[in-house]
Parts: sequence; C-alpha cells; structure tokens
Amino acid sequence: MERSAGLRNRHDRRQADLRRRLDEAGLPALLVTHLPNVFYLSGFAGSAGALLVTVDAVRFIVDNRYATVARAAADAIESEAISVVDVESSYEATYRDLLRASGVSKVGVEAAHICLAQYDWLQTALAEEGPELVSSRDLVEAGRLVKDASELQVLTEAGARISAVMEDQITRLRFGTTELEVAANIDHAIRKAGFERPAFDTIVASGSHTALPHARPGSRVLKKGDLVLLDFGGVYRGYCVDLTRVASLGAPSDEARSWHGAVREAHQSALDTVRVGATTAAIDHAARSTLESKGLGEAFGHGTGHGLGIEVHEAPRIGRRRVPDGVPDPEDVPLEPGMVFTVEPGVYLPEHGGVRLEDDVVVTTDGYRLLTNVSLDLREVG
Amino acid sequence: MERSAGLRNRHDRRQADLRRRLDEAGLPALLVTHLPNVFYLSGFAGSAGALLVTVDAVRFIVDNRYATVARAAADAIESEAISVVDVESSYEATYRDLLRASGVSKVGVEAAHICLAQYDWLQTALAEEGPELVSSRDLVEAGRLVKDASELQVLTEAGARISAVMEDQITRLRFGTTELEVAANIDHAIRKAGFERPAFDTIVASGSHTALPHARPGSRVLKKGDLVLLDFGGVYRGYCVDLTRVASLGAPSDEARSWHGAVREAHQSALDTVRVGATTAAIDHAARSTLESKGLGEAFGHGTGHGLGIEVHEAPRIGRRRVPDGVPDPEDVPLEPGMVFTVEPGVYLPEHGGVRLEDDVVVTTDGYRLLTNVSLDLREVG
Repeated sequence: MERSAGLRNRHDRRQADLRRRLDEAGLPALLVTHLPNVFYLSGFAGSAGALLVTVDAVRFIVDNRYATVARAAADAIESEAISVVDVESSYEATYRDLLRASGVSKVGVEAAHICLAQYDWLQTALAEEGPELVSSRDLVEAGRLVKDASELQVLTEAGARISAVMEDQITRLRFGTTELEVAANIDHAIRKAGFERPAFDTIVASGSHTALPHARPGSRVLKKGDLVLLDFGGVYRGYCVDLTRVASLGAPSDEARSWHGAVREAHQSALDTVRVGATTAAIDHAARSTLESKGLGEAFGHGTGHGLGIEVHEAPRIGRRRVPDGVPDPEDVPLEPGMVFTVEPGVYLPEHGGVRLEDDVVVTTDGYRLLTNVSLDLREVG
Repeated sequence: MERSAGLRNRHDRRQADLRRRLDEAGLPALLVTHLPNVFYLSGFAGSAGALLVTVDAVRFIVDNRYATVARAAADAIESEAISVVDVESSYEATYRDLLRASGVSKVGVEAAHICLAQYDWLQTALAEEGPELVSSRDLVEAGRLVKDASELQVLTEAGARISAVMEDQITRLRFGTTELEVAANIDHAIRKAGFERPAFDTIVASGSHTALPHARPGSRVLKKGDLVLLDFGGVYRGYCVDLTRVASLGAPSDEARSWHGAVREAHQSALDTVRVGATTAAIDHAARSTLESKGLGEAFGHGTGHGLGIEVHEAPRIGRRRVPDGVPDPEDVPLEPGMVFTVEPGVYLPEHGGVRLEDDVVVTTDGYRLLTNVSLDLREVG
C-alpha cells in the first residue's frame, strides 16, 4: 500500500467539500452506498461497504471480509472523526441502527445508486423511529467532476502507460491471429504495465466487426486488408483511462482511408473546441457536424465522449443536448479546468466496417492537455 | 457466435416460465432492467439494455451501440413475439413510451436492481397515463436458481477449464515473484483457457496477507515459508466459476498445516451435507461447527458459499440463518437438483495468515457433483 503524505489531506478535504454541499442542500447527513463514491471519500476499494457522513463524523460500514482493510484506510486518513462499524447481520440493519443512533432528523440517500428494495426496507424500518430519508443526487459526484491534483497525477501516469500498451500492441498485430488472442495479449500487457485490471471488456474488432461500436472479440482470424479496431483501458490506482486506435492489415482500401480521414478530422474538431467555458454539447456538435459535412452523420450513432475517473463512464457526458433548445440541460455543462473525458467520434457502416479514434483529455486553464499520446495515422501492420 | 440448435427453445422456455410466475404474481408485465436477467432471458450480453416482457410479446430495448447485436440475439430466438426497440433519447423515456403503449394496467419493476431515481422518474412520468408500477423481486432469479441442462453443460466445461488453470498456476509459483506478477499471469491464463474474462479481481495473497479474506495482490514478493492463496474465477459463455487453493512455498509451518487441515475437514463436512432437501444453512453449519470444534470458529468470519451462474454471487447463499430460530428465513432454502454454489470455508488469523479452500458444486438427484477438481493437498512449491 502506497500511502503518500498528501493522502490524509486529500480525503479530509473531499469530506469537507461534501459537508459544504450537504449544508447547501439542507442535509445533516448522507448515506454513501455507491462504491466509487466511497473510494473517492475514503480510499477504500473493496467490493462492498458504505459511509455514513454526518456533520462531525464519518462512519465506515463494512462486513467482516473488509474489516482489516477498512481499518487501514481509516487509519491512513488520520482523523479522529472517522471510525469503522462492522456489519453484524446485514448492511440494511446496520444502516438502520446507525441512523437511529445518529440523532439526525433526515439523511440523504444516493437516489441514482440505492435500489428500490433497499430504500423501501430502510424507509419502513425508520418509519417509527429514525431520520427521514431524502432522495438526493450527485452530492459526491459534484466533487468528482473536477479532478484534484492527486487525481490528475494518477490519470497522467495512467494515460502514458496505456498509450505505451497501445503503441506496442498495434505493432504486434499479425495476420492469422484471432480477435480473442489479440484481446488476451492486450489484457496481459495492461496488467504488466502496472494496471490493476482492464477498465472494461477489451474490444478487438476486425473486418466487418469494426462496424459494431461495442464489438466483442471472437474467433475471427485477422486477414489481409482488414481494419482492426483496438479499444481498451486500464484501472490504475483506482482511476480509468480508455483509448481507441484503428490499424490496417496491409494496405487499407480507399473506403477505409476515407472513413479514417473523416473521423480524424472530427476528432480534431472536437479537440479544437475544448476550452474553459465551452459546453459539452458544443464539443459533440463540432465532431458531429464535421462528419455530417462528409455525409457520415448517420454513421455516427453514439455520443462524442464520456467523463473518466474512478468510473470509466462518469460525468461529464459529451453528447447532444437531450432537451429542446432553450430549456436548460443539466448535462450540458460548461467546461472547467480539471475535467477529464474522452473524445471518441466514430463511423459505422453496418456489414462494411467502421473507424473510431479515442483519446483522453484534461481541460486546462489555457485549453486542454491530452493524457493519451499515440499516433493518429492509419498505420499498416501485419 | 455459437448458436446451438437448442438455443431457441432455451430462451423461449425461460420466457414462458417467467410468464407463469408473472401470472401467479398477478402481473401482466415485467420491466427487466437487471442485465444478468436480460442475458438469461434473451442471450444478449451487452453493457446496457432491458426487456419488457408482456403476456404475448418481449420488447428488447437497446441503444444504438447494441442495435445490431440485439437484432442478432432476437433473430436467434426465432420467435415472432420478440422485437427490438431502439432507444432514441433515453432509456427512461423509452420505457415510458412503451409502457403507455402496452395497454397493461400494471407492470413489475425489479426492486432489487432499479435505482430509486429511475423508479421515481418513471412513476412521475406514468402518473397521469400509463400502468401502475409494482415493486417485485426475484421473478427472473427464481428461474435462475436451478440451472437447466444447457447451463450445467457450460458450467461443467468452465469448471474443468478453471481447474486446469489452477493446477498449472500452482506449479508455476516461484520465490521472488510478486503477488501482482502472479495475478497477471493467472489472468492471462484464464483468457488463454477460453474464458471471456476473470469473474472478479483475482486474489493472490502471500504470507500474512492470506489473513485478509479479500486481499488485493500487491508488490509483496513471495518468500520461502509463505502460504500463497490463489482465488480466481472466469466467465465462460456468460457463466462464472470460482476456485481457491493454498500452496506453501517450501515446507509449511506446523501452524499452517493445522489451519489447512482444519479447513479441509470443514470443506469435506460441508460437502457431506449437500443433498436434495438439505438446507443452505445446514451446509454452513456443518463447516462452521467443524471449525468451532477446533477452536477456529472465530477465525471463520464469512459465509460458507454463494450461488454461481450468470453472476459470481447469486442465490442460493450458503450462510448462517439471519433471522431468529423458528422464524422462516427466505434465504435458507432446501437444495434442489441443479443448484450450483461454492463451498469455501476459511480461517483468518489477523497478521498471521489464513487458509481458504473453495470448490464449485452442483446438487444432483443423488447428492452432488464437483464442477472443479484440483487436489486439496497443501502442496509445497517454489
């Protein structure tokens, strides 16, 4: 376990920021059940656990499997306000007992993450004695939206490492291997590069499979003339990066060259739009209108990007506005320094093929900085 | 994509079973949002998607990324009753529109999986026009609890493959490698063995780290005299297997031998209890009382096992009853042929070390059959 000197201050500060937002929302407490939020606030990375954050304390609720790890994480924060509570029978019963004992009149629950069954159980259990449950949203995520210095340091390192994996894997592509074999090699390389795990199921798509935005690698053998799309990511010290490139096995067709050229232009248009104050929808619009101008608007069916951090898909969403013009869209946010997201336009021609190019970007005071760095040329390999 | 002749019947039959349970529950429709349930009913394995199951139709709701894959899955079922609906603006809005158009008076939602925010949104959207939302539980899971022939075939193959990986990886353990390196090798071997991915973050714990039930592999170097615990699993054609063994680098200490012997006995006691009609709590009790009789009851803090299938943790839970004696515990179920679960007792002595032994078991008409098959001896390697 690497415990840097800044760790105590980092988690303390995030908890203090959360308390400010709770105060603004008129909430004396929040039950944090979403694990990425638990990790953000405490450094705890288990597969189960929760935090009860009140004005003067943080209770770390874990079951027996994680008790030792949770105590170590709590100790690392070096704050007397944080303590570990062991789950005896069930998480729900532990929440109920803690909430009753907390003395607060109401408590926020994370509406985007708590399931209906757990909410209903708690609400019934607290009906006669205990705080009122208040449906709340984005109270922790609001802090995660802008990365702090330690997060940017981790993401920068992760971006460099994933780029090196991509560079190496592209040059290793060979005729005669299957998509599944390439995916296994990539996943191994991701681990060897120091990542905890792939950030999502690695995509290796060849030939006509490149027309599926979320293709799963299969037994198809790489053939001369194929485009090969590699889309993978890694989790490094808890943070996700995500990268896509396309290579050509042998000389690409004119069609493939033209798709690739169009996507590369859309990718650059999107990046050119990234600056403090620009909105996420404006970035999407830049990529989309470039592809539309080439008659490929219909071939670009997904959004231009997504936020990156503890989750591989988080805010901000880089996509079209989903509400009518003139109506405020809460997802169409103006960029701030420290926001991190992907830019990944693509075109997909069913049964023919497709191209996607994806990089990870951090907004800076004077524009943006790429976290990933691999040539955007359509390279011939094999 | 492997499409066997039985596939059409398999998904058709599962949908028919679900309709019977819906009928018993007085529900004319169910909105299936839990992805493992979507996969079970349709074979669709994307990272987003839902099903609306009504008396005479199944609507397959997917966004643009998965449209092609979903159409292929729907075609494979070869039923006119299944159709694909594209998400235009958001999943929620698509649910709303479909539910309004469905003409049903009420619809079940999966309370253990739908989040409070989505439920609240839908309830508001349907308040004036559309069906009543009914909180429901386990309607699809009830079918998944007992595996059908095709599932057992896949799990049997997966169990054999993961056993071969364990056998090979144990013999490859060497002094001087780090836990992380071993974990990377295991994950690569899992992929090479034909699995889609590891079923969870691979656990490699050495020395005192074996005392943490859910240890994360770190930079600790394997040393002479260490116990090394390997706990990993794989997803094979959508189904999870999970296996744990412990080896000794060089000769084990007397202490390690005695922990291992005790856990091995508890593991056998649990297996000896597995038969049709025995309850899940009885299996847990068998393992637990064996360890208690050796003064190691306190050192065994978790349950004896968990169900396996499309999820790596699913019903049945093999653990202590969580309600007072005499009160029916819905989780303490009598075993039926076709139930699949792990048996994994362990002992953990904080700061000293631990041992866990885990196998995967299917209940048969005349007892049980092990899906995994690796020697339970405490082998000396290095």
